[in-house]
Amino acid sequence: MSGHSSAGSTSGGGDKRERILEAAIRVFAGKGFFNSKVSEIAREAGVADGTIYLYFKSKDDLLISLFEDRMERINQALRERLPREPSAEAKLRRFIEMHLDLVEKHRALVEVLTVELRQSAKFMREYKNPKFGEFLRLLAAIIEDGQRAGELRAGVPPTLVARAIFGALDELSLARALGKSDPISATQVADLLLSGLRGRRHT
Amino acid sequence: MSGHSSAGSTSGGGDKRERILEAAIRVFAGKGFFNSKVSEIAREAGVADGTIYLYFKSKDDLLISLFEDRMERINQALRERLPREPSAEAKLRRFIEMHLDLVEKHRALVEVLTVELRQSAKFMREYKNPKFGEFLRLLAAIIEDGQRAGELRAGVPPTLVARAIFGALDELSLARALGKSDPISATQVADLLLSGLRGRRHT
Repeated sequence: MSGHSSAGSTSGGGDKRERILEAAIRVFAGKGFFNSKVSEIAREAGVADGTIYLYFKSKDDLLISLFEDRMERINQALRERLPREPSAEAKLRRFIEMHLDLVEKHRALVEVLTVELRQSAKFMREYKNPKFGEFLRLLAAIIEDGQRAGELRAGVPPTLVARAIFGALDELSLARALGKSDPISATQVADLLLSGLRGRRHT
Repeated sequence: MSGHSSAGSTSGGGDKRERILEAAIRVFAGKGFFNSKVSEIAREAGVADGTIYLYFKSKDDLLISLFEDRMERINQALRERLPREPSAEAKLRRFIEMHLDLVEKHRALVEVLTVELRQSAKFMREYKNPKFGEFLRLLAAIIEDGQRAGELRAGVPPTLVARAIFGALDELSLARALGKSDPISATQVADLLLSGLRGRRHT
C-alpha cells in the first residue's frame, strides 16, 4: 500500500491515515464523492483539516488512495484464499461468496466502490486503476485455468467472462448496498453463472 | 414522454427540446454530469442559456428527463420487438442483441446512462427512476415466463436473474463505451448466460 503520498509511512501515522480513510468511506457513501468536502471528512475523522493534507494531496487523491488500499486488501484476500480451492468451480464459488459477504459486512465501502468507482472511470481516466485491473485479472485467470483444464466452457474470452461475472455481482451488490434487495444467496448466483439460465431439459 | 416540464409540449418546441437533450448527452459524456454546466449545454445546442430553463427546471431535471426519455424509447423498442420472438430464449437473445447494438450506435448515450445512472442512484434517491424499473421488469417478465413454461431454470427469483443479466451487459457496455474492449459478440454473451460457464462434460 505505497499510496500516493509518502506521509502515510511515518511511524504512528498509519492509524491516523486509516482513520481518515474510514471517515472518507462514511462521508462519500453518505453524500457522494462530488458533494463531499475535505473538511467534513476531517470532522468525521476527528482531525484538523490540514492533517488530511499531510496524508493526501487532494480529495481526488483521497478517493484514489481509498480504492488502491481497499482493492489491494480484497485482492490480497483473494490471493490467499482462492489457491486453497481444488477446482475452478470451487474457486469461482469462493470468489462469489467473498464478494457478497463484503456487501453484508462493509456496506458503505461497497457503496463507495460500486458507485464512485464507476464515476471515477471517467474523471480519473488518466489514473489506470491498477488494483481493479488486478482484481479482474485474478478472476480472468480462474476462468482461463478452468477452460484449459476442460472444466469450464472454452471459446469465450476469459476477460469477457470476468467482466460479465463482475458486472452481475456488482449490480447485485449495488442493489443490496442501496437497500433495494434482500441478502443475496451466493449459492444461487454461483449456480446461475455455472449452469446457465436454460432449464434442465435443454442442457 | 410527458417529462418533468410542460414546455416540451408547445408546438415546435419538440425539436428544440430534443436538440438540448442531444447536446446534454454529448456534454455529460464528455465531462461527467457534475462537471457539466448548463451554459455549456446551451452552447452545444445552439440556444440561449435561458431557453434551457423553458424546458427543464435545472441540470438535475435535465438529467432525469434524459433518462426518462431515452429509457422510454428503449422500453418502447423492447415492447415492440420482444413479443415477436417465439421463446424465452429467443427473447433473451434479442434483448442482448438490442442492448449491445445500442452501445455501438449510441456510445455517448450509453456512457451517460451507464455512468450517470449509477451516480444518480444516489443523488436522485427520491426520484424512483420508474423507466429503469420498467426496463428491469420487462427483463424479469421474460425470465418468469420462461421459468413457468419450463424453458428456463426455476428456483431463482426472476428479479435476481434480471439484475444479474443487466449487470453483466451493463459492465460489458461500459467497458466498450469507454473504449476498453472490442465490439462484444451478442451470441457469445447469450450463450454464456443461457448455457453457463461449466464445460460440456459437467452439464
